[in-house]
Amino acid sequence: MPTLDDVRRAADQLSGRIHRTPMVTCSALDAMFGGPLSLKAELFQKTGSFKVRGLLSKTLQLTPEQRERGVVTVSAGNAAGALAWAARDAGVPATVVMATTAVQGKIDAARAYGAQVELVDGDLITAYEAIRDERKLTGVHPFDDLDVITGHGSLGLELLADAPQVRTVLVPIGGGGLISGVALAVKLLDPSVRVVGVEPAGADVVSRSLAAGSPQKLPTAKSLADGLAAPVCGAHTFALISQYVDEVVRVGEDAILAATRLVMSRTKLALEPAAAAPFAALLEGSLQLTGPTASVISGGNLDVGQLFGSGSLGDTP
Amino acid sequence: MPTLDDVRRAADQLSGRIHRTPMVTCSALDAMFGGPLSLKAELFQKTGSFKVRGLLSKTLQLTPEQRERGVVTVSAGNAAGALAWAARDAGVPATVVMATTAVQGKIDAARAYGAQVELVDGDLITAYEAIRDERKLTGVHPFDDLDVITGHGSLGLELLADAPQVRTVLVPIGGGGLISGVALAVKLLDPSVRVVGVEPAGADVVSRSLAAGSPQKLPTAKSLADGLAAPVCGAHTFALISQYVDEVVRVGEDAILAATRLVMSRTKLALEPAAAAPFAALLEGSLQLTGPTASVISGGNLDVGQLFGSGSLGDTP
Repeated sequence: MPTLDDVRRAADQLSGRIHRTPMVTCSALDAMFGGPLSLKAELFQKTGSFKVRGLLSKTLQLTPEQRERGVVTVSAGNAAGALAWAARDAGVPATVVMATTAVQGKIDAARAYGAQVELVDGDLITAYEAIRDERKLTGVHPFDDLDVITGHGSLGLELLADAPQVRTVLVPIGGGGLISGVALAVKLLDPSVRVVGVEPAGADVVSRSLAAGSPQKLPTAKSLADGLAAPVCGAHTFALISQYVDEVVRVGEDAILAATRLVMSRTKLALEPAAAAPFAALLEGSLQLTGPTASVISGGNLDVGQLFGSGSLGDTP
Repeated sequence: MPTLDDVRRAADQLSGRIHRTPMVTCSALDAMFGGPLSLKAELFQKTGSFKVRGLLSKTLQLTPEQRERGVVTVSAGNAAGALAWAARDAGVPATVVMATTAVQGKIDAARAYGAQVELVDGDLITAYEAIRDERKLTGVHPFDDLDVITGHGSLGLELLADAPQVRTVLVPIGGGGLISGVALAVKLLDPSVRVVGVEPAGADVVSRSLAAGSPQKLPTAKSLADGLAAPVCGAHTFALISQYVDEVVRVGEDAILAATRLVMSRTKLALEPAAAAPFAALLEGSLQLTGPTASVISGGNLDVGQLFGSGSLGDTP
C-alpha cells in the first residue's frame, strides 16, 4: 500500500507543473442541500480534468529507455488528453486508444496535445494490449497503477489544506483511480473524515466488486457521465477502496442529467456530467449532508458541440 | 456627466454587498488569439450577471417613500433577476416586466428572488409604463439611468485595479449600460486605454445610433445572445458611448455560437452567449489583439434546460 509520504512526494513533483485548483462555494447549493459545501474546482486543471495529476506523476517515473520508446493508454476520454499533455510536457511520445464513440472534444484534445490517437470500435483493452506489445510501448493503465493513484492523491492533500473543516468528501467513481488516491491521502491525514464515492447505476463496477469481494468486470458500462463508464475495477483500486472508502452510492441517469444542469446553473462552472454525480445522489436523497462537505468537480470536458444543438442555430459551426 | 468620484462612491456602497469577481486567464485562448487576455469573470457575480451592480446601486438611492411603494423594471432577463435580488436585499418590493419568450431560467430567477413577474407578449415598454403608472411604482430603467451606469462603473475600477497592464478593454453591448459605466471608469482613470464594444448584427442599435448621431430604435432586435437584444439605445448611454468608447464592432450569430462553445470549452466557464460576443469578433477577424487585453464575461445565465437536449437523454428532467 502506498504511504502518505508517497503521496507527498508525488505532490511535490507535480507542484509548479500543474494548477493548484481553487475551492469554490455556492450559497444557492448550500441552501438547497442544507450544508456548507466546498467544491474542489478541478475542471480548471490542465487538460480540464484531475487525470493529469496521476498521468503526469506516472510519466515522471519512467526510465530513460521507456521515455524514448513512448507510452500508450486506453481511455474513455479524459485520461487520453491527460496522458497526451503529460507526455508532451515530459518529452515522451504518446499513443492513446479511444472508442470511436468518445466525446469528440476529448478526441480532439488528445490530438491537439500531440498524441497518436487510435480509434477502436470493438474491445478497447484488447486493442490497447495489441498496440502496446506490437510497438513495444510502455502501457500506462488509466487508473489501476500506484503511481497514477498517488498522483491523484495530491488532490486530497490540497482539499484538506484548503478546507480543513471538512468532515465528508464526495468523489465521483469510474474505475476508482481518483477516489483511491483521494481516500488514501485524506484517511492517512485524518481517519475521521468520511469518504463517499458515487457511481452511475449503469456503470456500477465498484459497487459490484465490493459486494462480490473481488474486482469485477461488467459486460457493458454506459452513462451520460462518460468519464465514469469504466467496465472494470482494478486490483489496486479495489484494495484501496475496500480499505479507505466508507460508502459507495449508485445514481440514476435522470439524476445525473438534472444534477449537471443544476450545478452548472447555480455555480456557472461548465462541469461535465461525471463531476455532477455526487449532486445526483443528493438530489435522489441517497446521500444527505451532515456537516461541512467537499465535493470534487472532477472535470469540465463537456461536449459543447451539442450546446444549443437543438435550436435553429444548431447547424452553425 | 458622472465623475470618477460618482463611480467610486457607487463602488464603495456596493462593496461587501456583492462579489468582487475574479480575473481569470486561459493559455489556450492566448495562444489562439495571440495576446495576453484577462477575463473579468462577472458570471460569478450575485444573480449570475453584472446587472446587479447598477440595479443595487440604483435601489440604494431611493427615497423612503419610493422604497415603500416599490420598483419596476423591464428586462430581457438579467436585469429582472438583478433588480429582484437588489430590491430584496434592500427590503423593497419589486415588479419586473419580461417577455414571454425570455430564457426560462431568468424568469425563474426573478421569481425566486421574490419579484412579481409580469409576462408580456406585445410591446414591453408600453406594458412597463402602464404598470409603473397604474401601481405608482418607481420605474428603474434597466440601463439608461446614471445611478445604474455609475454602479456598473465599479466593474471598470476593479478591472484596472486587478489588471493594470491592460491596454484594451472589450465589452459586450446590449443597450449600452455596461459599456457606458466601464468606459466612464476606465477612461477617467487612464484615457490611453482603448474601450471597444461588441454587439450582435441583428441587434445593432448602438452602431446605428452612433452612425445617425442620435439614439435610435430598432423595429426588432433578435440574437442568440438574448442579453444583448435591446431594441433601443438610451440618451445617457448614447452620450457616454459617444464620448468614451473608441470603437463598436458588429458580430454575426454563427460567430456568437462558435465563440460561446469555444470559450466554454477552453475556460470551463459556463458563460452565456452575450458574454462571448467579444470572442465572436476575434473569431470573425473584425477585432485583433494588440497587447494586454481584458474582456468582460458579463454573465452566465445560460439556458441549461437545453443542455443535452438533443441527445437520447433529452427528455429526462
